Amino acid sequence: MQKINYLLGYSHLKIYQNEDWFKFSIDSVLLPNFVEIKKNTRKILDIGTGNAVIPILLSTKTNAPILGIEIQKDVYELGKLSIEENKLEDRIHLICEDIKEYTKKQESDCFDLITCNPPYFKMEEQSNINEDIHKQYARHEILLNLDILMTCAKKLLKNGGSLAIVHRPERLMEILLCAKEKNLEPKRIQFVYPKRGKNANIILLEFVKNGNAGLKIAEPLYIYNDQGEYTEEIKKKFS
Amino acid sequence: MQKINYLLGYSHLKIYQNEDWFKFSIDSVLLPNFVEIKKNTRKILDIGTGNAVIPILLSTKTNAPILGIEIQKDVYELGKLSIEENKLEDRIHLICEDIKEYTKKQESDCFDLITCNPPYFKMEEQSNINEDIHKQYARHEILLNLDILMTCAKKLLKNGGSLAIVHRPERLMEILLCAKEKNLEPKRIQFVYPKRGKNANIILLEFVKNGNAGLKIAEPLYIYNDQGEYTEEIKKKFS
Repeated sequence: MQKINYLLGYSHLKIYQNEDWFKFSIDSVLLPNFVEIKKNTRKILDIGTGNAVIPILLSTKTNAPILGIEIQKDVYELGKLSIEENKLEDRIHLICEDIKEYTKKQESDCFDLITCNPPYFKMEEQSNINEDIHKQYARHEILLNLDILMTCAKKLLKNGGSLAIVHRPERLMEILLCAKEKNLEPKRIQFVYPKRGKNANIILLEFVKNGNAGLKIAEPLYIYNDQGEYTEEIKKKFS
Repeated sequence: MQKINYLLGYSHLKIYQNEDWFKFSIDSVLLPNFVEIKKNTRKILDIGTGNAVIPILLSTKTNAPILGIEIQKDVYELGKLSIEENKLEDRIHLICEDIKEYTKKQESDCFDLITCNPPYFKMEEQSNINEDIHKQYARHEILLNLDILMTCAKKLLKNGGSLAIVHRPERLMEILLCAKEKNLEPKRIQFVYPKRGKNANIILLEFVKNGNAGLKIAEPLYIYNDQGEYTEEIKKKFS
């Protein structure tokens, strides 16, 4: 069922989503918030943009044009609806294509910033193959995996350009090893904890193409307080 | 000048140190606290044990025999004094030797747990070569570097045994890459922050020899509160 939702803390923004497929989650809201827009950020790409929640939130931080790429036609259509609803057609452009095909024909070194909320789970972890195909694509590395993502980012990013992603802590090692192979240097990591006393369950990472070594571990972020409400830091970030 | 100090939160323990050489720091207190002693932990090794602060603190968590290895004769003598002062001679044994030499002649797969608070800085970062030689050895990778540490741990640890170290976040990538090369799988990382709003400045890491993938990011630790006093969590850990 297709419905319109408001975005946490961004009461002027609306997003179309089909809850039978998948819903945008806190992860997609944390990533644009984590991203640092630099003065010379002129071209942005969001890979696997889904219903365009990341480009829409990024548009609150920059006037740079944002390209979103989404492989699934029906999800892409929903993204377009959201962009129109928010009157952002002049700043966000969506295309319906496979990022691998797009990268092949695209010239290299053309983006300042690439963002991505990729599927978190490996194919072998795919426990429920009967789930909706949209959910499968969003959750499992069927159409996009770490290696494809990093390979595309390596080609498409300008020298010194940034890749910002959200992922799971269990896969930190693989993420760092894969990035290393592609000369994407980790510069900033933020760990997100559901609440005090729990292990982190989300990681936010920023890499710089051909960057120098020198990693910063940003202050930790807690989502909920002991009462199960959003923490003050989360409320502050999203209002 | 040689003097005797009490250990934060361990009022029954005393440590000899020469403040002209180096003082044990909070790092050496955090590491034994971070270490998880397992039921089958029977033999423990502390590499570069200095004045034996790590073995002495570990002795509060386990009755397993602990071997400390220290290359500098005068530092080793100080460590022995501390062990006698705390009447721990039957549980902690110190030897004065280079870990590389020790590892060569030692049989493999003989320790359940290895701990180390290694030098944090690369040789090229050595800014003050006029500083005291004890400080140089403690701070800079002159006698011990990541590769030597991990190579020794790989040989000396039993299959499934743990290596626990304390280090700096800036070097996380190198640490993980080096561990990967030696089949030491990162299982648990804890980031330590000086206070709220600051980046992490200490990392605690646990690796398992030939372990399965699956990294946990433990809850963050803050040393000081906004008033510049130790946080409640630190006080609780050390009392």
